[in-house]
Amino acid sequence: MAKKYNFFAGPAILPQEVMKKAQAELLDFNGIGLSIMEISHRSKDFEAVINGAETKIRTLLGVPENFSVMFLQGGASLQFGMIPMNLLIGKKADYVNTGAWAKKAIKEAKLFGMVNVAASSEDKNFSYIPETFNFTADAQYVHITSNETIGGVQWMNFPETNSVPLIIDMSSDIFSRKIDFKNIGMIYAGAQKNIGPAGATLVIMRNDLVEACADGLTTMLSYKTHAKEKSMYNTPPCFIIYIIKLVMEWIESHGGLAGIEKINNEKAKTLYDAIDGSNGYFKGTAALKDRSKMNVTFRLPSEELEEKFINEAKKAGFIGLKGHRSVGGCRASLYNAMSLEGVSELTQFMKKFAAENK
Amino acid sequence: MAKKYNFFAGPAILPQEVMKKAQAELLDFNGIGLSIMEISHRSKDFEAVINGAETKIRTLLGVPENFSVMFLQGGASLQFGMIPMNLLIGKKADYVNTGAWAKKAIKEAKLFGMVNVAASSEDKNFSYIPETFNFTADAQYVHITSNETIGGVQWMNFPETNSVPLIIDMSSDIFSRKIDFKNIGMIYAGAQKNIGPAGATLVIMRNDLVEACADGLTTMLSYKTHAKEKSMYNTPPCFIIYIIKLVMEWIESHGGLAGIEKINNEKAKTLYDAIDGSNGYFKGTAALKDRSKMNVTFRLPSEELEEKFINEAKKAGFIGLKGHRSVGGCRASLYNAMSLEGVSELTQFMKKFAAENK
Repeated sequence: MAKKYNFFAGPAILPQEVMKKAQAELLDFNGIGLSIMEISHRSKDFEAVINGAETKIRTLLGVPENFSVMFLQGGASLQFGMIPMNLLIGKKADYVNTGAWAKKAIKEAKLFGMVNVAASSEDKNFSYIPETFNFTADAQYVHITSNETIGGVQWMNFPETNSVPLIIDMSSDIFSRKIDFKNIGMIYAGAQKNIGPAGATLVIMRNDLVEACADGLTTMLSYKTHAKEKSMYNTPPCFIIYIIKLVMEWIESHGGLAGIEKINNEKAKTLYDAIDGSNGYFKGTAALKDRSKMNVTFRLPSEELEEKFINEAKKAGFIGLKGHRSVGGCRASLYNAMSLEGVSELTQFMKKFAAENK
Repeated sequence: MAKKYNFFAGPAILPQEVMKKAQAELLDFNGIGLSIMEISHRSKDFEAVINGAETKIRTLLGVPENFSVMFLQGGASLQFGMIPMNLLIGKKADYVNTGAWAKKAIKEAKLFGMVNVAASSEDKNFSYIPETFNFTADAQYVHITSNETIGGVQWMNFPETNSVPLIIDMSSDIFSRKIDFKNIGMIYAGAQKNIGPAGATLVIMRNDLVEACADGLTTMLSYKTHAKEKSMYNTPPCFIIYIIKLVMEWIESHGGLAGIEKINNEKAKTLYDAIDGSNGYFKGTAALKDRSKMNVTFRLPSEELEEKFINEAKKAGFIGLKGHRSVGGCRASLYNAMSLEGVSELTQFMKKFAAENK
């Protein structure tokens, strides 16, 4: 079987080393004669897994001590509702509208309080990140989406919010680069891009915000519950958390986030260079300054050629290159587990395709 | 390595055939060169998995056509809140209090509407299932817990609710026996006992109840969303759903629920016979008529002997026999994947222990 490269926007590929280790110990974890899927979440073996995953996350991201790390469920989509339910009720928050994911977060927040859209890039089909913001002085928080998978834009620097807590949906670029926790009140991310398989949501929240969460919520929807019970109020998604721990070990072995960021920069440069060096055959859709290093969006001279490109690429082993149905075109997602080799091979294929399909 | 038997109340063991198949295809699913964890939830390969899982669930349980099958997240604990949030707001519902799990459901429901506890077995430490009920005529629904893992009691027959929809938390005995959907409006279950690994929640809901759900809820907490989008509003826990499909195939290969129920009856009889035939050395804690076939709770002559029994059993390869910390004693959970052989070996060990520790 020929090697396949999966450029899907998510769930994404996982590191081969991680998958091989998971396979090797799938029937017998730690020599206990049972799978990690088959033991109590209150067992010492699983406690070591979840505590180990948390410790590695804290170390890799440099999470300050006054933050809680939680493993939840329901994806970023549930967070869109949980955040305002806990922190907004009847008050004001600022949201920056940078694309489909930000819009979903805004829609849910409006169910619970007053939402000020402090900036939007909808005027240019979400092809850039705004640089000026109409922030509210008494906002409970400012919400942004660090990377938009559909428009292919990414915040290179987070906005200055002057002591208003910044809440960031990092679903599609967490662990792809170092981050500065200054201004940050909370970050969250569905696991299925850079963290692990679908089925867990990582939430990292400053403890004063946890304390400020609304009372009277149903237990499972209160961050207070999960911070206090260290993600063990009820049975967590044990196997997903186990894979997350393995992925964190893989990141460590690649020089941590500094090492990963360097490789991600090379991967993105390789692909954007191929696009920009194609004499206009391929055209990037995002503003140069805001080009995402995770999701590279581009067009070909016609929709017919795009369809042909996507199909021939698939036959050659490069799958998932179709752009999101709402915008069309092509998209290559370069999450952490995608190798530089995979990106280089894709650019070779692109060159060949362009030469043969003038 | 000696064979181990895991009698934990959950997460439970999974069938060996399932684990071996999962291991064999972990790196290459369907010959696509990628793991089931590494592909888009919108891909044809995953769609076949989730549709296949649903079809098998419908066939095995005999789910009537006017019910929706949903794969959610957050465990039964999130359902405790979602049910009243969707169906109770400001109205009345009847709950039967049979133990720790029913109590949790009651606590969450009280946040949203009026709760009538129609019967309770708290007077005898939840050691039996009530038989008379003080139902409300205009209740939105009647909620029961089909099996209580801590008290070790199980409903042998569901109550007659006279057209009021019955909502049943079946987390710990779903797929252990045939069920009659008469009166049933909804059943739900965390996956980690008889369905698969922790990380998915199965919800089966009559469509008129789906339609009756409250509007204005945050999107992810509305059953309408998940019924309409067929569990694909956002990324579902793909790998867990894949294992669920394998578990359903395993149940099929054991004669469906009729076959599984027969084995479960034998397993439970074997263990209860050993308890009842021990001349009072082992004593079952549940009322005879309500003894759970999933969680067998029993005591030894003293707490010291219980501790010794649990420790020596562990050394002999029988793990997870400690009763829940809130009640003490011993508990052996006999979920579907536990073999009759495992139960027989446990009873041999019990006999030997009793003889040696008079």
